Amino acid sequence: MFDPLCPSDLMPIRIGDKWAGMIIRCLERGPRRFSELRIPLRGITAKALTTSLRALERDGLIIRPAYAEPVRRVEYELSQLGRSLLQPMAVMCTWAQEHWDELLDAREASSPLGRTEQAGQARGQ
Amino acid sequence: MFDPLCPSDLMPIRIGDKWAGMIIRCLERGPRRFSELRIPLRGITAKALTTSLRALERDGLIIRPAYAEPVRRVEYELSQLGRSLLQPMAVMCTWAQEHWDELLDAREASSPLGRTEQAGQARGQ
Repeated sequence: MFDPLCPSDLMPIRIGDKWAGMIIRCLERGPRRFSELRIPLRGITAKALTTSLRALERDGLIIRPAYAEPVRRVEYELSQLGRSLLQPMAVMCTWAQEHWDELLDAREASSPLGRTEQAGQARGQ
Repeated sequence: MFDPLCPSDLMPIRIGDKWAGMIIRCLERGPRRFSELRIPLRGITAKALTTSLRALERDGLIIRPAYAEPVRRVEYELSQLGRSLLQPMAVMCTWAQEHWDELLDAREASSPLGRTEQAGQARGQ
């Protein structure tokens, strides 16, 4: 789902914290459980996911719909407000795709580390 | 220049750190000196401005043009890459303007503090 060469650490435009933008993208096609979110968000800890989900909920970008079921089921879903963010996010993603090489070149030029090492570090986080 | 009710602390979409988006906006109409940047960026410390400028420079979004003058003059200017960010930033600003009340309402609903106090806190930072 997410290009490993496009980690949010290198992205100058961000939605909320490190994971928020990716969580919103994960919820684009419908509600997801906590455990379902952890699969595409490789490397996220349960604590980081909880923190990020709480922040998104506090901002009204995601909701937890209530189900009339005997067994408790917790899912996360984009609110109307969260869904409205998808269009500006798409504009940003297009910008990032078009300018990614320039960003990496600039980082490389200003860092003693080479591009490969930087990308590896970002992936490892 | 910046709406005090629109502090970046409340903004779910961000360019870089807290100040980066505002710095880019300040440079939209041409190069600015360090001291000139501090005027519209009310409340920014010299240290925070330096940190933010370095990060923007590292990402190739701003440059420091060299002047052939006997007296050293340091100015900051948007690079072509930085200038290309203005359009996606404008899309985000439009989104924020359209949804600001919803964001504030969501924060208010999830916080024991009222809206006025929150806005005051954000302004004070």
